[in-house]
Amino acid sequence: MHLRLASDAHHSAPITQGKSGHDYGGFFREAVSRLHGERRYRVFADIERVAGRFPQANWRRPDGSTREITVWCSNDYLGMGQHPEVVGAMTETARRCGVGAGGTRNIAGNTSPLVDLERELADLHGKEAGLVFTSGYVSNQAGISTIAKLIPNCLILSDAFNHNSMIEGVRHSGCEKRIFRHNDLAHLEELLVEAGDRPKLIVFESVYSMDGDVAPIGKICDLADRYGAMTYLDEVHAVGLYGERGAGIAERDGVMHRIDVIEGTLAKGFGCVGGYITGSAAVLDAVRSFAAGFIFTTALPPAVAAAARASVRYLKRSKVEREAHQRQATQTKAALEAAGLPVLHTETHIVPVMVGDAELCKAAADHLLECHGIYIQPINYPTVPRGTERLRITPSPFHDAAQIERLTAALAKTWDALGIPRTGSAFGVAAE
Amino acid sequence: MHLRLASDAHHSAPITQGKSGHDYGGFFREAVSRLHGERRYRVFADIERVAGRFPQANWRRPDGSTREITVWCSNDYLGMGQHPEVVGAMTETARRCGVGAGGTRNIAGNTSPLVDLERELADLHGKEAGLVFTSGYVSNQAGISTIAKLIPNCLILSDAFNHNSMIEGVRHSGCEKRIFRHNDLAHLEELLVEAGDRPKLIVFESVYSMDGDVAPIGKICDLADRYGAMTYLDEVHAVGLYGERGAGIAERDGVMHRIDVIEGTLAKGFGCVGGYITGSAAVLDAVRSFAAGFIFTTALPPAVAAAARASVRYLKRSKVEREAHQRQATQTKAALEAAGLPVLHTETHIVPVMVGDAELCKAAADHLLECHGIYIQPINYPTVPRGTERLRITPSPFHDAAQIERLTAALAKTWDALGIPRTGSAFGVAAE
Ligand SMILES: Cc1ncc(COP(=O)(O)O)c(C=O)c1O
Ligand SMILES: Cc1ncc(COP(=O)(O)O)c(C=O)c1O
Repeated sequence: MHLRLASDAHHSAPITQGKSGHDYGGFFREAVSRLHGERRYRVFADIERVAGRFPQANWRRPDGSTREITVWCSNDYLGMGQHPEVVGAMTETARRCGVGAGGTRNIAGNTSPLVDLERELADLHGKEAGLVFTSGYVSNQAGISTIAKLIPNCLILSDAFNHNSMIEGVRHSGCEKRIFRHNDLAHLEELLVEAGDRPKLIVFESVYSMDGDVAPIGKICDLADRYGAMTYLDEVHAVGLYGERGAGIAERDGVMHRIDVIEGTLAKGFGCVGGYITGSAAVLDAVRSFAAGFIFTTALPPAVAAAARASVRYLKRSKVEREAHQRQATQTKAALEAAGLPVLHTETHIVPVMVGDAELCKAAADHLLECHGIYIQPINYPTVPRGTERLRITPSPFHDAAQIERLTAALAKTWDALGIPRTGSAFGVAAE
Repeated sequence: MHLRLASDAHHSAPITQGKSGHDYGGFFREAVSRLHGERRYRVFADIERVAGRFPQANWRRPDGSTREITVWCSNDYLGMGQHPEVVGAMTETARRCGVGAGGTRNIAGNTSPLVDLERELADLHGKEAGLVFTSGYVSNQAGISTIAKLIPNCLILSDAFNHNSMIEGVRHSGCEKRIFRHNDLAHLEELLVEAGDRPKLIVFESVYSMDGDVAPIGKICDLADRYGAMTYLDEVHAVGLYGERGAGIAERDGVMHRIDVIEGTLAKGFGCVGGYITGSAAVLDAVRSFAAGFIFTTALPPAVAAAARASVRYLKRSKVEREAHQRQATQTKAALEAAGLPVLHTETHIVPVMVGDAELCKAAADHLLECHGIYIQPINYPTVPRGTERLRITPSPFHDAAQIERLTAALAKTWDALGIPRTGSAFGVAAE
């Protein structure tokens, strides 16, 4: 956000205080100062990505000077955002079709590249239909709420660790809900039994992005079958990354066909922007027809749709990125553990290093950036529970052995400089 | 949406029925069949835009064959989506930085082109700060709800014709609300008086997109001052199009500095995608820090931000597009009125031609597309009230005299062929 007064502004800024005694500006300043007080005021690092040199980037300091850094926290997990086929699809389509879609899906914005992308996504997940939204966030918010609203007397069963966008979808539906303990099959079954014969929708994720753990998808499908529930799965942190063709964990586990609605993003493994759901023609036609967050907004640009489709197509046929991704993630974990750093054990590509304190976590990130040119954003509340603040590291196929070594040394020095505990026992984490 | 079974799908689609006796698929099919029954099932025309030839495009028929058509319903009002500076900014930035942002604003996604865009937007509206969202929809939903929530005991006063995204923002805030009759100053004042001394937020639009009428912004500011209310203005259908530098109606009317928060889109007049709010540093820092719909989603790609910024910058200095836009809109209205078609009078660039019946409206649009190669999407409920179904025509600087003539002849023939009434008296519209 631009916070300084634009020096060339033609009008002075409004003073939103003093009107009838209400200090409106004060309400907002107070809210923000509470964040400062809790040490969770967020400062965004200003980064310029450099295509062809991922994970290197330029960091623009607040004073305008720049420094080359290594990004270790990008969710462009495979670096597909810089893949020549993906960049080429964007530039070629922009030249051919222009930039924007020019309208909502219904009013002039239903462009061919978007229609083709939906076909590609339906095929990816082995479903009848695909539907693209402006983001994964909106696909969950609009998708879950619309689906649940259209099921009479629906009870939603929602994993306790579900992403904010899913929670908003659940809330927005206005349906009754029960939260099951994270990945806890016994608790989910208990709630299913309690619910009796009414229609039920289970909403959950495959890879949980902050801890890097994975849902027992097949077993959840077993329960859904047994108790007659519909299933909605967020594969946002898995699409492109897992499975024979990059459809995610459900594909890897051979249970994709058992899930009713699979949601994903085009912004992480696929390196672009946008979100989607896939499922039966009946469900998707209903969401298309009733979801306000889908209907009343401009469609994704054709150039973005073409880039995303190129990425999806490429990752359907190429496995080398997925293999390199897992290899580099494994090597990163091993190197950090060998250095005695408190790595949270995960079976995925996500490497959380625990700090457990908001202020220390921010200080560690600042130290890494300023002293070592390593960019890892601190993860604080509300993204993770208080007391589990962490650095969340995301190795990519492009982070090589030398970079892993530099990262390990920089983290070790930072831990020493700031006196951060090495054993993560407080988090149930054993640094090995 | 892709509705046919993907022929190369690797898995068969799940059958969501029969589980414990719940026919989930049936719930969705039923909901959609209600739409068919009310003649408001929407079919999206599949369009391929052709840069350099706007408003010409290719229509891809359901059978895969294509036909060249003229688009008369795009919200890329000035054709900026195909402007060489805008397309060039997208392609150049995609080549330099890659496609996606790679993360949320907080986690690796805060790219320099986005930061620069926010500065540009703050300057455009003469405000201290700008904040970009993935869409105008999300900017309203997240912006209004977050602002209202942070004002203790806030009462929201909302225009009756506000866009769905604003209604969702109001609803989402959980605050008490009062709806004032559309553009009705007396009613707004009545509600302000009734509200007494509590904090109040007035939310409204400048150009209402379906009727093309304009809010009395200055007079609403007078009331806001008198009764101590904060103001939030949606300029989505005006940015780029009105005012000396294209900041919208508030700029044109010289009252921009009196509005607390101005919201806009990058997807219509600016021809790209994305949305934003501008206002004081205090308000925007609070929204940045508290709005879930801003925090938990991937940032707009640098290439999109760069394209949008190029568009905003260009339209700040060039007025020829705005002038040509108004001229062609005026000529279109005059031509249609001369042909006795029921044009709704507007003072803006929006030209609604009234039909008043969902089925006829759809039939007229189909006839225009199939027989005349003219694409105007029918506008039905819920976008407009039942009984006011219409064709909404949006002339651009690129629709020339010959195209206006062809449009007029095609509409006249369609009206005759389908027996649609010419005088719009039923809508309080006199065809002149
Ligand atoms: C689990 C999950 N679902 C959905 C989203 C939202 O996806 P997008 O960034 O495409 O809005 C995210 C993060 O951004 C996420 O972590
Ligand atoms: C008044 C108004 N506000 C907001 C929006 C949403 O903007 P966007 O298309 O950028 O989501 C629209 C239409 O799309 C609109 O008509």
